[in-house]
Order: sequence, then structure tokens, then C-alpha cells
Amino acid sequence: MAKLWGGRFTRATDKLVDEFTASISFDHRMAREDITGSIAHVQMLAQCGIITPEESQQIQEGLRQLLDQVENQEIVWDIANEDVHMNVEKLLRDTIGPVAGKLHTARSRNDQVATDMHLYLKNKVQEIIQLLEQVQYGILEQASKHVYTLLPGYTHLQRAQPVSFAHHLLAYFWMLQRDKDRFTESLKRIDISPLGACALAGTAFPIDRHLTAQFLGFADVYPNSIDAVSDRDFIVEFLSNAALLMMHISRLAEELVIWSSQEFQFIEIDDAYATGSSIMPQKKNPDVPELLRGKTGRVYGNLMAMLTVLKGLPLAYNKDLQEDKEGMFDTVDTVINSLQILEPLLMTMKVNVDVMEQAVSADYGNATDAADYLSSKGVPFREAHEIVGRLVLYAIKAGKSLLQLSMEEYQQFSPLFDEDIFEILQPQAVVARRTSYGGTAPTAVIQQIELAKTKLTFIKLNR
Amino acid sequence: MAKLWGGRFTRATDKLVDEFTASISFDHRMAREDITGSIAHVQMLAQCGIITPEESQQIQEGLRQLLDQVENQEIVWDIANEDVHMNVEKLLRDTIGPVAGKLHTARSRNDQVATDMHLYLKNKVQEIIQLLEQVQYGILEQASKHVYTLLPGYTHLQRAQPVSFAHHLLAYFWMLQRDKDRFTESLKRIDISPLGACALAGTAFPIDRHLTAQFLGFADVYPNSIDAVSDRDFIVEFLSNAALLMMHISRLAEELVIWSSQEFQFIEIDDAYATGSSIMPQKKNPDVPELLRGKTGRVYGNLMAMLTVLKGLPLAYNKDLQEDKEGMFDTVDTVINSLQILEPLLMTMKVNVDVMEQAVSADYGNATDAADYLSSKGVPFREAHEIVGRLVLYAIKAGKSLLQLSMEEYQQFSPLFDEDIFEILQPQAVVARRTSYGGTAPTAVIQQIELAKTKLTFIKLNR
Amino acid sequence: MAKLWGGRFTRATDKLVDEFTASISFDHRMAREDITGSIAHVQMLAQCGIITPEESQQIQEGLRQLLDQVENQEIVWDIANEDVHMNVEKLLRDTIGPVAGKLHTARSRNDQVATDMHLYLKNKVQEIIQLLEQVQYGILEQASKHVYTLLPGYTHLQRAQPVSFAHHLLAYFWMLQRDKDRFTESLKRIDISPLGACALAGTAFPIDRHLTAQFLGFADVYPNSIDAVSDRDFIVEFLSNAALLMMHISRLAEELVIWSSQEFQFIEIDDAYATGSSIMPQKKNPDVPELLRGKTGRVYGNLMAMLTVLKGLPLAYNKDLQEDKEGMFDTVDTVINSLQILEPLLMTMKVNVDVMEQAVSADYGNATDAADYLSSKGVPFREAHEIVGRLVLYAIKAGKSLLQLSMEEYQQFSPLFDEDIFEILQPQAVVARRTSYGGTAPTAVIQQIELAKTKLTFIKLNR
Amino acid sequence: MAKLWGGRFTRATDKLVDEFTASISFDHRMAREDITGSIAHVQMLAQCGIITPEESQQIQEGLRQLLDQVENQEIVWDIANEDVHMNVEKLLRDTIGPVAGKLHTARSRNDQVATDMHLYLKNKVQEIIQLLEQVQYGILEQASKHVYTLLPGYTHLQRAQPVSFAHHLLAYFWMLQRDKDRFTESLKRIDISPLGACALAGTAFPIDRHLTAQFLGFADVYPNSIDAVSDRDFIVEFLSNAALLMMHISRLAEELVIWSSQEFQFIEIDDAYATGSSIMPQKKNPDVPELLRGKTGRVYGNLMAMLTVLKGLPLAYNKDLQEDKEGMFDTVDTVINSLQILEPLLMTMKVNVDVMEQAVSADYGNATDAADYLSSKGVPFREAHEIVGRLVLYAIKAGKSLLQLSMEEYQQFSPLFDEDIFEILQPQAVVARRTSYGGTAPTAVIQQIELAKTKLTFIKLNR
Repeated sequence: MAKLWGGRFTRATDKLVDEFTASISFDHRMAREDITGSIAHVQMLAQCGIITPEESQQIQEGLRQLLDQVENQEIVWDIANEDVHMNVEKLLRDTIGPVAGKLHTARSRNDQVATDMHLYLKNKVQEIIQLLEQVQYGILEQASKHVYTLLPGYTHLQRAQPVSFAHHLLAYFWMLQRDKDRFTESLKRIDISPLGACALAGTAFPIDRHLTAQFLGFADVYPNSIDAVSDRDFIVEFLSNAALLMMHISRLAEELVIWSSQEFQFIEIDDAYATGSSIMPQKKNPDVPELLRGKTGRVYGNLMAMLTVLKGLPLAYNKDLQEDKEGMFDTVDTVINSLQILEPLLMTMKVNVDVMEQAVSADYGNATDAADYLSSKGVPFREAHEIVGRLVLYAIKAGKSLLQLSMEEYQQFSPLFDEDIFEILQPQAVVARRTSYGGTAPTAVIQQIELAKTKLTFIKLNR
Repeated sequence: MAKLWGGRFTRATDKLVDEFTASISFDHRMAREDITGSIAHVQMLAQCGIITPEESQQIQEGLRQLLDQVENQEIVWDIANEDVHMNVEKLLRDTIGPVAGKLHTARSRNDQVATDMHLYLKNKVQEIIQLLEQVQYGILEQASKHVYTLLPGYTHLQRAQPVSFAHHLLAYFWMLQRDKDRFTESLKRIDISPLGACALAGTAFPIDRHLTAQFLGFADVYPNSIDAVSDRDFIVEFLSNAALLMMHISRLAEELVIWSSQEFQFIEIDDAYATGSSIMPQKKNPDVPELLRGKTGRVYGNLMAMLTVLKGLPLAYNKDLQEDKEGMFDTVDTVINSLQILEPLLMTMKVNVDVMEQAVSADYGNATDAADYLSSKGVPFREAHEIVGRLVLYAIKAGKSLLQLSMEEYQQFSPLFDEDIFEILQPQAVVARRTSYGGTAPTAVIQQIELAKTKLTFIKLNR
Repeated sequence: MAKLWGGRFTRATDKLVDEFTASISFDHRMAREDITGSIAHVQMLAQCGIITPEESQQIQEGLRQLLDQVENQEIVWDIANEDVHMNVEKLLRDTIGPVAGKLHTARSRNDQVATDMHLYLKNKVQEIIQLLEQVQYGILEQASKHVYTLLPGYTHLQRAQPVSFAHHLLAYFWMLQRDKDRFTESLKRIDISPLGACALAGTAFPIDRHLTAQFLGFADVYPNSIDAVSDRDFIVEFLSNAALLMMHISRLAEELVIWSSQEFQFIEIDDAYATGSSIMPQKKNPDVPELLRGKTGRVYGNLMAMLTVLKGLPLAYNKDLQEDKEGMFDTVDTVINSLQILEPLLMTMKVNVDVMEQAVSADYGNATDAADYLSSKGVPFREAHEIVGRLVLYAIKAGKSLLQLSMEEYQQFSPLFDEDIFEILQPQAVVARRTSYGGTAPTAVIQQIELAKTKLTFIKLNR
Repeated sequence: MAKLWGGRFTRATDKLVDEFTASISFDHRMAREDITGSIAHVQMLAQCGIITPEESQQIQEGLRQLLDQVENQEIVWDIANEDVHMNVEKLLRDTIGPVAGKLHTARSRNDQVATDMHLYLKNKVQEIIQLLEQVQYGILEQASKHVYTLLPGYTHLQRAQPVSFAHHLLAYFWMLQRDKDRFTESLKRIDISPLGACALAGTAFPIDRHLTAQFLGFADVYPNSIDAVSDRDFIVEFLSNAALLMMHISRLAEELVIWSSQEFQFIEIDDAYATGSSIMPQKKNPDVPELLRGKTGRVYGNLMAMLTVLKGLPLAYNKDLQEDKEGMFDTVDTVINSLQILEPLLMTMKVNVDVMEQAVSADYGNATDAADYLSSKGVPFREAHEIVGRLVLYAIKAGKSLLQLSMEEYQQFSPLFDEDIFEILQPQAVVARRTSYGGTAPTAVIQQIELAKTKLTFIKLNR
């Protein structure tokens, strides 16, 4: 086809090239942002006297008409027109005639596409922040119910010390809080307008970049036109933040999978959030957490892809930058879908309080406290640790928990053990003692929940 | 909807879950392989007496009908049926009735999806191998024309020593040759049948796995059913090989971009393979090589994604594995499109022989030979190197090439320089002397081309 | 050897295991932080009445003695003692006897190592921020000298429009400004104390976590003990920020390499920052920018490594987390060394103003302005673009720049061209017209420099 | 210091540059290969008449002396001499005087360093292949003992169907077999000599590249000198293969960690391969498998690093390539150490046969066979699946396994159930029936073990 830039060329591009270089198959997702950006641009052009109010009016009407068609999914995108910008311009010309050409005054596709992406990602990041808070809210709800539910706390997937289930869940609250903070901070670098940077050098037309920024709700304007068109940091930063978030989700998902196993049985995923097997009738599979865990891969991959694209790229715009979009879209979808499904997954899962507490009773998570006990009676901690180590070994061989040992058995290991040891080693007592700030004692956990509530700034808590 | 595995469940899955876990939106790309695999399976079931010949006949007819519909793109895939396997089974049931259910005898989705992927990737890797050879052929064509064309050979992007342009191009021939070898070797691990591994443990039905493998053209059969359903090495290996290939393409693309610059002008990309600017009328942009270079990112990303998915995954099948497909499809497309466009790009580019040779004449790429000259007259190489270093510095300041210096100037640096130095430093002479095996002398390059020809085993050379 | 945790064990660890699991070969880099953390801990223990003032005094003295030895590099680390914590404890015991054992009260290696890393990274990130500003300062210096130096602005490595060299350099100023912002923001999540979280659940001892935080200069305290010991987000975030920074450096390095080529010759790297060839006497290689570009790889790799380690890791501490250190150290070194060398590299490079301006005069970077010229005379932009495209094609074939064409030649393409076109197409005029905010006109660039100066908050500017 | 290439330079390099660009701190690891390569080179030079036999003799003696010093670790490497090549040359000159300079005839550091790396990696890959086989041997040993040991086979970490423990272990045998195949195939591309390619263009000296290749035991010679010095594919391929291998190890490690948990207790890691806690006396942590799993990260990272370095790098040698070594060394060490520790870890672990079999008896892994039972009596499989699904749900609620249900209970779900169901659902019977090729029945597993034995080509099996 005849390209909009054909004058210097003596031959048309090869069909293969058209297909290879076209981006319309994916960048049409930014059609709304593209048209909104154009409306702002054209308003500014008129306000600055670069085009007439009538021209501005005409173009704006045409654009708004297209915007409606986009919303109603009535537009057929044409690969012959390369990208969303050219498609929109062509459609506009078909609608309002040659005046459409004025839209391109004092603008290039380089600043236009950057503007679209900033607008698009700003919206999406705000949506993600809200979803994050929704999941945090869900965690807080579950935690509030389980302050006094005990389960073994694990290190190395070995039972370490009993903890409050609320406490364990809240660890994820704080991870998501950091995610929220990072996404929020990243907005400073997303919410900034490249529009008016033109191809790379700015323009001789008396445009007002702050005006278009204001129309579009941008908080700031790029102070360097070359940087404005070649910067894709905000996408890398988004992908980094998304990678960290998915990492957190993968850790939680791993725990949900492990907890759902027949061996652990700490939770049961609701039937509505599990799936079965086409061949094994007894199976109830934690597909959702598994897939959440698996989807971490694609986000890591998208991050690595974008970092690779940008490595060693000279200024200013290079076609390589076209590769910035698909990974961003895919990551936006992945993160949003993951958060949307995570919240009900957590809210509907059945917590097997009995199984957890049985586990706590049967294990040696109170051994540290046995050592502390001896230590408080004057035994140096290292020696106390050694004594209790041997005691545990004895108990394992005898098939008993520490609470099931007799006083005589205790005394074989140290005469300092007294009857109060049985009280002291009760899991509830073990937990209740850990009142240090951020610790697992109910008092500390309740305090933690109160602090957590203050972090939910979007969602109002009325409980 | 009612799932095929619902007996154990008391509640339907949430709509969000259906969407989140469904794979039909992308795995329908393997519909042909899925149906072909089913036909083979059902033939075997009959041959082993597990179903009747009539049942087999009926099912095969239904499947072949579906295959036609797939070829004609007449099928509407339904997200409610999760994946391509369930969609096909549902459509089969709609066509031939309950006998369709027999198709699932002695098979699970776990071995079925693995079979589909092996079949799919085997075809695609073979296609890639052929395309690689086509590009190699193109390189060989260009090289054959440019044995005597000289350009500066670069290290550190600094002119080092003059080389034959054929020689430079052929470096890429050998990179692709290694790619071809790796893809070919990988076929051993792709061309192997998991069918009959069932869910993970094999089956009690008297199936014949070697028979289905033979029907489907597989060279081998997995000897361990657990490995068969959980192995995704062949995909990682494919992605690794693709990453290496794209890295090679990115190096060539970088050179094409640099060579197309106004400063180098060593080549001119054909108008049919370049694009213009919507704002700058003079621009002719090397979009195709830039995009080739940029697409390296997504393939690296897909590799990293798959490695991440598999990290720490216990045996056997886990839902995380569903994430194996999109990155594979995307990489297959990227590699195939890249190779398809690379070949005509190279074949149509204009090589500016004059510019290259002018560059060779103007530079100091013959300085090594000046040092060798002194060295051959008994000056230790390190000292000769030092002398010529100072000579070059002098020449740069004087704005002359070494061939433009006078005999007196030479003698200021060493009395050993004689008139023959002017002959010896001619670029053609410099190149012609490098006759060591694999060197850049025309004689060596012609020998190299002959060797290269023997590596093109798919394409017959009649020249 | 006898381990500090051996009571429960019946056999010593295998020597291979000792070597495989020991971290002392690299974590000794945090010896200073480890000892400082211990001093704070022991002060707090005394202040809270958990140990006596005398014990505290004794331990502190021993620790300070060790700190001196660390500073003087007098310590021999022993692999038999696993890690820096156990080594320090052992050395302390050797010095002050069994009272050393009290140091471990109400603390575990889990919170201890996390504290060390927070302390270490906080210092290093602050150092990086200062170095970033030093490089920014250098850029600003160079930019200030080159407001009126013109060079071709490139897109697609094709000359696009002339720009001020200052403008081009300043693009990097803003990249580094974003890096600085990100590193600064990340401090919020680094500058927070995990100390007192103990193994994972907090402690029954009446410790004061805010007190140790205050002693160590931490701004905040982790509100959840499980999160405190298993969080490595701050390392991933550091690596992400470092990856982005190295990406920026790689872009600048690529330009320095290209600009140093004989074909471009825009700059010449100072002899003190370049290297030669052992075989080719004329070579002057831009090794430093090449290596800067290459080192991007290891930082990307370290990021990917850490993301991989954390993927799917259940709470709380797992031994996998030991893998968090080497990549962090390597990245700290790489970033610091890169910034340290980048600044003098930029300050000492020779800018070939003449070559740049010759390039600007010879190219077609003023073609956009020719189109704008026609456009301002009423020709629709798309048509003007087409006309100038043909004009450029003509000029290329004629071997002339646009300024070298005659009035008659111009008029063959459009009668609207008038004598003033020769003034308008002067590169200086082209640049001077681009006065839009952030544009390349000297007035705009000077304004940009003023804005940039306000961003240097650490370095006081007296110019 | 005075560099060996200083003639063209007017100023010495900055100290910072020396440190930044020097590689001696890590490339000294290839000192043996470097010297061996030089000996071969010098022998060839004499044999081709380029240097005299006496010179050759002298240089060889000097080199052999240095080789001894390297073996005895008597050499002090000097950062002032940049890299291992310059260090060796300097030391040689100190030993034998100026004749040392002849060593550099017809060679450049570009082909020299490539030769060193090929030699180094060839040795290491061969070592890795042997270690792989040792681990395979260990797996085979364990498998041979546990053909009749049953444990639940898992999909989605949910119990699916009972399998032989030997069968499960053997899945890893085949993964390692693929690793071995890949490493073996990669040797073709490692075992090839770049020596004689010189800087990039070959040489005018009448060298014999096949002769040095033969001296060094290389199977082949690079046919293109530019490719020879710029190819780092073999390192990327090594890193890819290592990444796949570490992925396999991470999967096995994950299982060992899960199996060691108190909830699973399928295995117990030997005391010699586990570690304890400094605070919790009862802990026995699977540090070794955890660290194996964690070390996957660094290998993935090293792969990504090298791919990044090479992306978009023009030919031929660039300084970026210096970044090829540390990641390779680190990966070599990681892989070798991991394999060395994995073998005894597997051989010494205690398999809790009773716990495994108890698990098998208590679960619903025989449900598929109950469905098959109904199916064999004429119930369509989908309906049978549905019936058994409800049966399982009933049994779960009743707290019974399928074998614990009464005949009446069965008949409530289908009248087709008969007394023989109790025999059929015995785990041993379930497993024994799965005799399909590669299936889990003892007969099939024994056949598999026989096949596996034939794959151990290095280790001779006498059992």
C-alpha cells in the first residue's frame, strides 16, 4: 500500500515486512488512550493558535466518534496501516476528510506512542494498587479470625516454633504493602507527559506541553525531549514491581499447595476454586494456586525481555522499542487476574483449625522454650541447647512429644527440670510468651492488626 | 458448567476460575496434533483388542471429520471446555454420540498434552532447520560474490585489519551451522512418545505404546511414565537453542544497522525492506534489522520464563506446566518469521563496495603488517609494535594513511623500512597474505566456501 | 568439628557438607555490620535487664576489639565455623570466655543475618546515590560547555534532526535522576530493622526492638517477625534498580563506542581511559565503555538469580536464602566501580566539535523543516512530506545537501520554495527554532540545565 | 606501568582503568590451559620453520617451568599485567629473556584466550559427564532396592495413584541421561580449536592450525577466523545445559525437602548431610537439598548474564567478551559441587518404607481402578468416574479408605460392585497391573532398570 512516508522511496515495502513490522494486532489495546491523547493535543493546538478553533472542533468531533466506536468495539483494525496511530488517523480522514492531517502538526509517532503508554499504564497501575489492597483486606479478615489459631511455624520446612495463624498470614500482608508502596512510588515516573517531544528534538511550533499534560491529567512533563521519546524505564520498573509481586504470590501459592496436601491438610480449598481430574475420581487439585505460582515465570520472563531489548540501545527512538508493549500487556493481565482470583481463594478456603493444633501438639516446636527454661535456671544457652537436643532425640525414639515425657525422663537429662515445665511447654503458653514487638503472641498480633488497618488507605474499614 | 470430573465436588467452579485455568485460547493451536494423536491411539486400542474395530472406525471417522473442520477453521472453541482436549472430546461426542467416551480409555490428559507438544514442536523444529539452511544459502550466495571485496575488519568497533567481505559474512554461516546442529540434535529428545504414560503410572490396559509411536512417526518411546508426563526439557532446550539463534541474528542485525548509517554506508537496505518516518521526509530506517534485534528480548524472556516455571517443581504433573505453551508458540513464531525475513533482507541489500574499499584504503588496518615487516627484519615483535605505534600516531596527526607517508617519514621511525613497504601495505596484499586455514585471503575464503557448501544437506546446490 | 547445634545429632556432618553449606568465604564482607549489630543488641539486653551491665561491658569490649581486627584485616576466617556470625562468636569466646554465650540471648542467626544485610546495603546504596550525583554533575559540566555544539540527532541510528550536544547528554542526566529517585525510595525498605524477630516468632525475653533499631540508626522496625526473617525484597529491589542503572550505562557506553569509531569520530576517549592491542599497533580501543556495557549482563543475571531463588519459597527462613549474598556483593561492586570510572571517562573525553558540526551540515536533518516550510505555506503536511521526500531522494542522487541545491532545483519540486529556505535550513536555525519546553533550542536547553542543577541535592554547585 | 601496546599512546592508563579492565583476578584459573596452549603453539612454530628449534626449546623449557610453578601454586599474579596471558609472558621473559617475545608470533590474545577457554571447558564438561553418571549410578542402586516399595504417586501434590519408589527415582535417572546427552553433544562445539585465528583475520605466517589442534587434542579446527575469536556459543550452550541440569536437581531437592518434613516423613536425611539450628534444639534441617535448590538461581543468572552480554554485539572481538569467564567458572564449580554432594546424599538417606506404605494404604489412589472396574463391567468411563467420585466423597466424610468400606456401602453407589473389588483395590494389585511399557508395575520397572544400566557407559556395572 501507499505509505504515509513514501516520498523518498522508489519501491513499496515487501508484504512480509508489513506483517513483520506492524503492531496493530496488539497496540490497538491503547486505542482509547491514543484518541484521548489526540483530543488533548488538538485542543492545545487551537488554544495556542496553531490551528483554528473550527479545525479543532471538527477533528475533536471525529475523534470522539471514533472513541465511541472503540468503546463499542465497532472498529476493524487494518494491518496495512501499521499501528494504532496510523489506523486512527486513516479512520479520521475517512470520516472528516483532509483536515484530519492537521492532527499530526507538532507531533510525531515517537511522542504519541510514549504518551499512550504512559496513560495506559497509569490507569492499570492504579487498578493494581486497588486490587492489592483488596487482597490485603482479605488477609486481614482471615487473620482477624485466627489470632488464637496455632500452627507450627516452619523454617527449612521443618517445624520450628508454634505461631499464630494470623501472624503467618500477616507476613503476606506486609509483602503486599511493600508492593503497594513500590507501585505507588513508580507512578511518579509514569504520570509524566512526553507529548510535544515530537520526533526527538521538540518543535518549532509554539505548543504548550504543560497544557496537554493538564488536559490528560499528567502530574508532570518530561524536561528533555530526547529522553521523553526513548525512555522506557517506567515499563521496566513496572515489570520489576510486578515480578516482585508475583514472587510473593508464588510463595503464598506454594504454601497453599503444601497445606492442601493430604499430609498437611491445614486448609481445604473451596470446591469453587479447585478442579478435578478427568481420570482419577478422588482428585481435588489446587489448580489455582499452582497456576498462580506458574505465572510467576512469564512475568520474570517479560522483565528479562524488556531489559534485554533496552541493553545497549543508542538514543533516541529505535524500532526495537516496539517490543515494549506485548510483555507489558501480558504482565498487566497476569497481575490483575492473579489478584482478582487470589482474594476469593483466600476468603473461601476452609482453615482446618483442629489439624493445625494437633500438629502443634505433636511436634517439638517447644524445644527452644525447654532450652530457655534451663538457661533461665543458669545453664549457659549453648549447654542448654545441647541438653535439650539430646532430650528431643530421646523423645523421637520413644515416639513421644515433650509434653508426653515423664518427670523422671526429664530429670535424666537435667535435674533442673521441674513440674512447671509441663505448663511452660504448652503450645498456647509458648506462643503467648512471645510478646516482643512483631512477635507471635496474641497481644502482639492484635497490635499488628491495628497497625495493618492503618495501611488500607483506599478501602474504608468499618468493623 | 458440569465438568467431566465433577463427582467428588459439591459446588461448581467459579466463573473466574474457569477463565483463569482454561487454556483453549492458546492450546487450540495444537488441535491438529491432538486429533492426529487420538486417531493413532484409537487405532492401537482396536488393534490391541481394547475396543472393537467398529468402535474404532466410528471414532476415527468422527475425528477425521473434526480434522477437516480444523483445517477449514470451522470450529468454534469453547472456553467452558477448558482446553483443546476437552473441546475435541465434546465435539466428538456431539458428532458420534457416547461411543466418543471410549477414546479416553487408557489415556489421560497428562500424556495427551505431552504428545501434542512433542508432535507440534517436532514439525516446527524441522521447519526451522530448513529455514536456517535457506538463510545459510543466502549468505553463501552473497559471500560468493564478495570474495575480493575488502572492508575493514573491526575489533572493539575500531578498524583492525582489512578482511574479505565474504569472510565476514561467512562468520554468520558458521553460527547458523551450529544452530542447525543444535536443533537437529534436540530432535532426539523431541521425537519421542509419551503416549500411554497415562496420568503418571502407566495403565492396566494391554496397550502397545510402540505401536502408537510408530503410527505417529515417533522415533522412540519414553521408558518411564512419570518422566513422560512431567518432562518439559525438550521445550527448555528448544527455547535455549532459539535464544542462541536470536542472539546470532541480533549480532548480524546490529551490524546491518551500523553499516546502514550515514557514517558507515557500507550497505543500503532495499526500499522494500526499509521504512520511512511519518515526520522526517529524508529518513530511511532499518526497521527490519532493528526489530530482529529487539525480538531477541522476547525469546530470552520466554526461556527465562520456562526455566522459572520448572524450578523446584515436584513430580509428576503440576498445573504450573500449563504455562509451557504460550512462550513456546511465541518463540516458534518469532524464530520462523525472523528467518523468513532475514534471507531476502540479506539477498536484496545493496553492498557499497566502493565505500568499503575507500574505508580500507584510508585506515591503519595494515599497521600489524608494518610491524610484522620490521619483525621479519629481526626487530623483536614487541619493539616493532612500539615503533609502528609511534608511526601511526604520527600519521594520524599528519592526516595521512600509512601508504601516504613518504620514505623519509618511514625512516625517521626505523631505518629498516624500505621501498617494498608500499607494496606490502596495500590492503589487497595484506589480505592476500593471510592464507592460514580459516584466514581471510581469497584462496582461504574460497576453500572455506567449498567446505560451507557441504554443510547444506537439505538444499541442493546447483551452481 | 563439633557444631553449636549438635545435641540432636548422632553423626558429624560430612566434610563435603561443611564446604558446601559454609558461607564464610563471602559473608565475612559483612563482619563490620555483624559486630556493630551485636554491640547494639548487647547494649539493649543490658538496658532491658536481660543481662547485667558487667556482662554487657565485657562483651562489648570483646566485640570492639574484634572490630579493630576486622578493620586491620587481622582476622583469619575459619570455614569450620560456617559463617561470619559463628566465626565472630567463636573468636569472641576465645577472647572473653563463656560470657560470650550470652550474646546469643534473644537472637537467632535468622534475624542476625538479615540485620547485617540491611545495614550493609543501606551504606552501599547511600554511596551509590552519591556516586550517581557525581556522574550527573560531570554530565552537567560537559553539557554546560556544549549548549551550542550541534550534532545529528539520531533515530534508528539514522540522522534525524540536528540537536544540541548538551541536550543529548542531558538525556542521560534525567535517566540517572530517575535511578537516584528509585534508590532513594528503596531506602525506606532497606532502612528497617529485623533484629529481635529471632528464629521467626519473636521472643519471650523482654527485649526492646526499637532501641536496637535506634542504636543502629534504622528508621523503622519490621512489624512482623516472620516477614522480618524471610524478606529479601530489599535485595531484589536493589538488583532491579541496579539493572536499570546498568541498562542506562550500557546505552551511554554504546554511544561512546559508536562515537569513537573512525566513521563517527564524534569523540576521542582520553589515552588514560583507552587501551591498545598487543598485536595491532594502531589500535586505540574503547575498552572501558565496552566493559561497562558488558557488565550489564552480570547485573541482569544477578537479578534473575535472586528472583529464581525466591520463587515458590515457603515461609519462613530456608537455606536457599543463603544465595542472596554473592549476587548482591557483586552488584554493589559492579555499580560502584562503573560509576567511579564513568565520571572521569566523560570528563576527559575529547569532543570533536568540528566533526559533529560537519556531520550536521552534510546531512538531511533539516528535511522536516523543509516540509514544515511548505506546510506553513498551506500545503497539507502529508503532501509536503511527500514533496520533500522526493527532494531528498534527488539530492542524495546528486550528492548534495539541501543547502547545496539551487533555487531552480527547489522550484522543480514546488514553486512555493523561496530564497528564505536557505536561511531556514541552516542547522543553527533549525535547532534555534525548537524552543518548545524540553526542546533542543539553546534557550530551552539553558532552562533545562537550570532545572537539572536543582536536582543535585548532595553536591553543592558553586558556579 | 608501561603497557605492551603503548606506542600509539601519549598518556598511561589511569589506575582505575587498570583495575577495571584487568582480568587476572579470575582468568588465572586457566593458567594451565594458557601455558599448555603456548607450548603447542611454539612447537608448531618450530615445526613450520617460523622460529628455530633452539628458540622453541628455550621457550618450552621456560613454559614448563612456569607450569610446575602453577601446579605448586607458587606464582604471584600481578594486576599490572592485566590478564593471565600477559602475566605468563612477563614471567617467561623474566625467566628466559627476550626470546620470550617470539611466543607471540602469529598469535593474538584474541585467539589465545578462546583457546584457553575451549581447553578448560572441555575438561570440565568431561568431568561433569562422569559425575552425572555417578549420580545416575546411585539412583540405580537405590531404585534396585525399592522396586517393591510403594508410595503415593502425586500430581498437583495430591495423591494420585500408588507407584513403585524405584519408578519414581528412575524418573530422575532419565532426566540426568538427557543432561548427559546434551553435555556430550555440546563437546562437538567445545572440542574445536580457534588457535591461529590471530586477531581476527588469520596470519601471513605459514602456520599449521591442524597441528596445534592435534597437539592439544582438539577434534576439529574453526574454519573461519572471525568466528573463531568472537564465538562464545559454546559457553552459552554450556550454561544452558547447566541450567537444565540444575533445574532437575532443584526438582529432586524440592522433593527431598518435602519428604523430610514431619508431615511426610518418607525419608530421613543422614545426620552427616543435615544441619541443626543454633537456637532450636530439635531441628534437623535439610540444608543440603535446600542449597542445591537455591543454587539453581545463580546458574540461571549466569546464563542470562552471558546471553545479555552477547546480545547485539558486532563482530569480531569486543571487550564485553571478557565478561564470559566468571559466570562460566562459577557455574562449573556449582555444577561439580552439586553433583558431588548429591550422590552421597541420595545413597545415605534413610527411606521410611513403612511410612510410605502406610500412606498408600490410607489414600484414595486406587479410585481410578474402582472406576476402571465399573467401566470393565460396561459402565461408560465418564459415568463410572462420576460414581466413584461420589463414592470417594462419601468415604472421606466417613473417614474411611475405599478398602475400609463395606459391600453394602459400595452397592449404594452401584450394584455392579462385587466382593472382588477388595482384592482389586489393594495397592500392590493396583501397581502390579500397570504393566504397560514404562509403567510402574514391578515387571515393567525391572525391565526399565535393565535398560537404564545400558546407559552407563563410563561406569562398569558388576552386579
